[in-house]
Amino acid sequence: MASNMTCSAGDLAQLLGPNVTNSAGAAAFICSQFHIAANNFTATQYAVDNTYLLFSAYLVFSMQLGFAMLCAGSVRAKNTMNIMLTNVLDAAAGGLFYYLFGFAFAFGTPSNGFIGKHNFGLKAFPSFSFDYSYFLYQWAFAIAAAGITSGSIAERTQFVAYLIYSSFLTGFVYPVVSHWFWSVDGWASATRRHGDLLFGSGVIDFAGSGVVHMVGGIAGLWGALIEGPRIGRYHHSGRSIALRGHSASLVVLGTFLLWFGWYGFNPGSFNKILSAYTDAPVYYGQWSAIGRTAVTTTLAGCTAALTTLFCKRILSGHWNVTDVCNGLLGGFAAITAGCSVVEPWAAIVCGFVASLVLIGCNKLAEIFKFDDPLEAAQLHGGCGTWGVIFTALFATEKYVGEVYPGKPGRPYGLFMGGGGKLLAAHLIQVLVIIGWVSATMGPLFFVLHKLKLLRISAEDEMAGMDLTRHGGFAYIYHDDDDESQRPGTFRLGKIEPTSTTPGANA
Amino acid sequence: MASNMTCSAGDLAQLLGPNVTNSAGAAAFICSQFHIAANNFTATQYAVDNTYLLFSAYLVFSMQLGFAMLCAGSVRAKNTMNIMLTNVLDAAAGGLFYYLFGFAFAFGTPSNGFIGKHNFGLKAFPSFSFDYSYFLYQWAFAIAAAGITSGSIAERTQFVAYLIYSSFLTGFVYPVVSHWFWSVDGWASATRRHGDLLFGSGVIDFAGSGVVHMVGGIAGLWGALIEGPRIGRYHHSGRSIALRGHSASLVVLGTFLLWFGWYGFNPGSFNKILSAYTDAPVYYGQWSAIGRTAVTTTLAGCTAALTTLFCKRILSGHWNVTDVCNGLLGGFAAITAGCSVVEPWAAIVCGFVASLVLIGCNKLAEIFKFDDPLEAAQLHGGCGTWGVIFTALFATEKYVGEVYPGKPGRPYGLFMGGGGKLLAAHLIQVLVIIGWVSATMGPLFFVLHKLKLLRISAEDEMAGMDLTRHGGFAYIYHDDDDESQRPGTFRLGKIEPTSTTPGANA
Amino acid sequence: MASNMTCSAGDLAQLLGPNVTNSAGAAAFICSQFHIAANNFTATQYAVDNTYLLFSAYLVFSMQLGFAMLCAGSVRAKNTMNIMLTNVLDAAAGGLFYYLFGFAFAFGTPSNGFIGKHNFGLKAFPSFSFDYSYFLYQWAFAIAAAGITSGSIAERTQFVAYLIYSSFLTGFVYPVVSHWFWSVDGWASATRRHGDLLFGSGVIDFAGSGVVHMVGGIAGLWGALIEGPRIGRYHHSGRSIALRGHSASLVVLGTFLLWFGWYGFNPGSFNKILSAYTDAPVYYGQWSAIGRTAVTTTLAGCTAALTTLFCKRILSGHWNVTDVCNGLLGGFAAITAGCSVVEPWAAIVCGFVASLVLIGCNKLAEIFKFDDPLEAAQLHGGCGTWGVIFTALFATEKYVGEVYPGKPGRPYGLFMGGGGKLLAAHLIQVLVIIGWVSATMGPLFFVLHKLKLLRISAEDEMAGMDLTRHGGFAYIYHDDDDESQRPGTFRLGKIEPTSTTPGANA
Repeated sequence: MASNMTCSAGDLAQLLGPNVTNSAGAAAFICSQFHIAANNFTATQYAVDNTYLLFSAYLVFSMQLGFAMLCAGSVRAKNTMNIMLTNVLDAAAGGLFYYLFGFAFAFGTPSNGFIGKHNFGLKAFPSFSFDYSYFLYQWAFAIAAAGITSGSIAERTQFVAYLIYSSFLTGFVYPVVSHWFWSVDGWASATRRHGDLLFGSGVIDFAGSGVVHMVGGIAGLWGALIEGPRIGRYHHSGRSIALRGHSASLVVLGTFLLWFGWYGFNPGSFNKILSAYTDAPVYYGQWSAIGRTAVTTTLAGCTAALTTLFCKRILSGHWNVTDVCNGLLGGFAAITAGCSVVEPWAAIVCGFVASLVLIGCNKLAEIFKFDDPLEAAQLHGGCGTWGVIFTALFATEKYVGEVYPGKPGRPYGLFMGGGGKLLAAHLIQVLVIIGWVSATMGPLFFVLHKLKLLRISAEDEMAGMDLTRHGGFAYIYHDDDDESQRPGTFRLGKIEPTSTTPGANA
Repeated sequence: MASNMTCSAGDLAQLLGPNVTNSAGAAAFICSQFHIAANNFTATQYAVDNTYLLFSAYLVFSMQLGFAMLCAGSVRAKNTMNIMLTNVLDAAAGGLFYYLFGFAFAFGTPSNGFIGKHNFGLKAFPSFSFDYSYFLYQWAFAIAAAGITSGSIAERTQFVAYLIYSSFLTGFVYPVVSHWFWSVDGWASATRRHGDLLFGSGVIDFAGSGVVHMVGGIAGLWGALIEGPRIGRYHHSGRSIALRGHSASLVVLGTFLLWFGWYGFNPGSFNKILSAYTDAPVYYGQWSAIGRTAVTTTLAGCTAALTTLFCKRILSGHWNVTDVCNGLLGGFAAITAGCSVVEPWAAIVCGFVASLVLIGCNKLAEIFKFDDPLEAAQLHGGCGTWGVIFTALFATEKYVGEVYPGKPGRPYGLFMGGGGKLLAAHLIQVLVIIGWVSATMGPLFFVLHKLKLLRISAEDEMAGMDLTRHGGFAYIYHDDDDESQRPGTFRLGKIEPTSTTPGANA
Repeated sequence: MASNMTCSAGDLAQLLGPNVTNSAGAAAFICSQFHIAANNFTATQYAVDNTYLLFSAYLVFSMQLGFAMLCAGSVRAKNTMNIMLTNVLDAAAGGLFYYLFGFAFAFGTPSNGFIGKHNFGLKAFPSFSFDYSYFLYQWAFAIAAAGITSGSIAERTQFVAYLIYSSFLTGFVYPVVSHWFWSVDGWASATRRHGDLLFGSGVIDFAGSGVVHMVGGIAGLWGALIEGPRIGRYHHSGRSIALRGHSASLVVLGTFLLWFGWYGFNPGSFNKILSAYTDAPVYYGQWSAIGRTAVTTTLAGCTAALTTLFCKRILSGHWNVTDVCNGLLGGFAAITAGCSVVEPWAAIVCGFVASLVLIGCNKLAEIFKFDDPLEAAQLHGGCGTWGVIFTALFATEKYVGEVYPGKPGRPYGLFMGGGGKLLAAHLIQVLVIIGWVSATMGPLFFVLHKLKLLRISAEDEMAGMDLTRHGGFAYIYHDDDDESQRPGTFRLGKIEPTSTTPGANA
């Protein structure tokens, strides 16, 4: 803390009187104490808020581990190292590119409504506007977007293509979108500082159903569309053949880690926790809104998981853990936009519908022979879109006013009596995100495709990328140097005829 | 915070006296400053405490991932998806049921001593008593109890039975127990607001060796008893045959995650960290008690792990990692009741005995041909019971007074000179928990058994539930679409006779 | 916070006026309010700092899980249980020994410059100097050092040898080193309380590139040297044969967990977050330095990962995920010393060079036929040494002054214009750590070797320690009790001829 407060009653009494000899001295003394207190409060404010934001950032970072495990478990064993390497590099390349360009494009203020233009390479840090913790938090978000996309194009994409799109997405495409909706200069931001809010409202995409999940999902959609399905995914008769992932344990591990990290993603998006609400009971402040956000997030995911469980039981005849995991994540992706401004009961509605949206998108994908190994386009794109719409329907007046203060009478959810302006703004958001990502990532994937840099060869795909590009299989459950190695023993991935001569093992 | 700042403008004006030009103004001004400071302190208090509680809740939630991995690794490969699905659904169904009923039954105050009756569906949240973070924290506890039970009945229970008992446990049985011992209305609570404390003391089950671990363990005991052992677990000659789990890596992963999460479970149970102790040095406050709780938790687990290592080395002749993991968790389950009120050296005693209790319970289980794939009844039930007793023996006067303030002279540990009243209360706790859980979960499992909804068929059990109920095996290390697939190659879990001619296997 | 306190001395003087009746009463009242405020600030300070330190400690603890998974994935399947057990016991035995002796040797003040001598068994806790959270944090560091060493000697070390060296390292060797550089009494500490600083500077090893990583790495170097390489690691022709780990998924899981935990390791080493800087803008305080530390840590790791990716692509011809993981960790190990006192751009330099250092050390290891299954000696020893040197070159004047306050004009990085004194101190650090660890751990390993307690027999090594010492293999993907068990089915690790009659597979 800045300094200690000290007060001597004797000294102060002398200063005060009986016939005040030194009123200026008394006042100076009292004021000095108040100044110390004010400074201490300021320091406390920064310390508490930075603690909150830093640990939230660490949680969001842990989602990268969740993505890695979810992706690994959802692909076939022969491509495990490939997909995990892309996840590690998302974080690593994302770190450099977001440091060099990304953050500046997103939040470099003052700027125009379209793109930021300051703070390249963390110049002028920290400032009144930003501390390092904020950069770290936003970096963790940026790599999440890239992580989503990597799932869509898994098991058939050249590694070089991966490096190119990932850097482009993290360093440019995503930062621009986050500038529009989250920067104080953004043309559609709900916290816009200068100029009118879009439809008098701006877009309330609190933690990024649109900004993060739709961006990642739509980028993945284009990648997967241009590459086409994996070999064997659709039979020439048209029948869909599930190419199941190789480890349900990794899928569940990844899902729970994402759930864990989502508590940094959604409640953490408040950035600050030490903020009282005016005209509210003393116990009710931003800390309550943060707790409520954690609760709405939880309930949406839980409801989506249960809905998916029973729906898929009816549709497929068994209780499927992978589908439940995807449903759960769909619920999270959907509630992310409105988590801070809806009631807990509405989160249940959100999760219920998200589950149906995901099932519907997956049906559509099958009809159009679209192949996304992680269902990332359907899950993050589809449920993310629903989340943006949902917010425009269910945001409450009270919570919108508290979370986005300073503009009394701003529009809120249509179903809550807040009119259609928020919905209009959110429909605009859906359209511009689809447009922007399609206009940037679509051509990129197309050019890579034309340059033959996108898809691996059919031979590589059949053999698996781990063997052909990454130096070996991900798993070795039998040792080469084991003395027990003979014909008839098993070595993962290497095929040896078990019987070579008649009677050999007799 | 230590005290509230108050400032009366009238009083201060009188004190400042009559011959001041504008004493009222001076007083009003000074007081307004103090009012601001007071409000700031209040906000700081809420922000810091909620930060502490929320991140503790996230840690406790991560234990659900720990349970999932521990359970997955401890069952055979053919039931991996089944057990993991139950763990995911614990959290999901638990979220809805605890939101709808559970929290209200547990903490809905004012109420009688037996069951709460307010706050269904988070009505009237937040309030002076509860914020959302508290709900989230308690939800994470509720699902932990259900997670314990799922281990006991693993590998042989119908999925429908699982859904029913889990909802009942999370929504009713567990909340009622937590009401008794943790609610301010509970008849045996150590923080009871109205009426006498049980034996002038109430039960000191700080983080729930009884409330959580015994409840989960005894529920599992009844489930496992009524179902009977897994096929092949006990040879008809009576010999016990270990059905080893399929992955020690997942067991260790789960154990470490539970250890990590326990730092939310035990130290987090303070709920608030910003609380100074009166008549104590300034550096000594609730933050110290919280740190001490983390230390006692650590030492109990460490001691139990080492004790188990050497005991099992002597008993079985090898160094067994799974046993060490279970021993570690037994130490944690035991210290959970008394973690905040015992000295670090006593935690070492606690862990040492917990290890012996677990070994003894496992011996008993073998004698009675009881089969619990996770040793959950033994570990959480047995070591949990020891933890309740241990607390009544080793709780220190000083710590009991600090952690449960406002009732000077309250009883503490028998061995520390505090008399037998705390022990009497804790024996009552052991009895009523055994009674209540047996009276509710026992009949439930029995009815499910009679309705043939509890145990799967022998065919399903032999084949594994993943194949028969969950759509496939959890692991595929060999790809169906691999061109190299020929007779003689290996596909995990699917059995194909390699020889088709009569007499081939003769 | 709700509002800002402001006080104008001129206004207040006017209001108070010339005649006051009860100056003593007024003064006492005002002072009592200030006293309350001062106490509240003190309590807030402790609560916030302890919250920060405790959660940082939990993060550092999670690195133990990271080590366990990284080690497990990096060894062959047949030694998985062995290495994981050592990781669990690191934490457990470390807990007891650090409680009994380690902490006292490291931080038991007042003491001489060589070794601490108070606070055995947490006596006199808490105090003005230490709270329990500090012990927990330091314990998590101690077990990290032991965890590093376990990697170097994996797959060929007797379990008993492991127990002995681990206790000795955690309880004595490491604590003494941390006393020298981190205790206020340490002869080379940058925060030394009495006596001159080494070269007027002391060693700036902020989070322990030297104290933790070099100690663990050099201990591992001696262990691995004395044991010699694993059977089969170097062909008698001299050719190096990679004995690949059995699971890349576990390697990536472990790496990400270590990354996650490093946010506790480096930024957490500040211990306190609520500390304003004098003569700085209000928004700039220790919270900013902590955020910057998280950023430098991130950038160093990211750069090292990318550098390794491309270097290894050129050297080996494929994109290797395990190498990238090791490169990433090398970057973290290197930035650990200087993370708090260098600019973000310098962290990129640090990571770039760290990657080259690791590649170079690995080349050297091959030349000298040194076998370290985890590359722990190269990674933590080599990159740790680079980190110590790097800090002496790139530490900035401003940050050194802020992070190590109270001694204006202290030396800083050579390349930043700070002269060579810091470099001299750091070269001393490198030498004494190498000397001390070699003089203690070298003889220990040598004596164990002579007593035939160090290395397992060749038979055990070929068969794998899990089978011979730990009761079985870590993985069972096929069940013994499965009715489908016949010739032709697969059981991991057990070899059965698959075909018994001629022509069976025809």
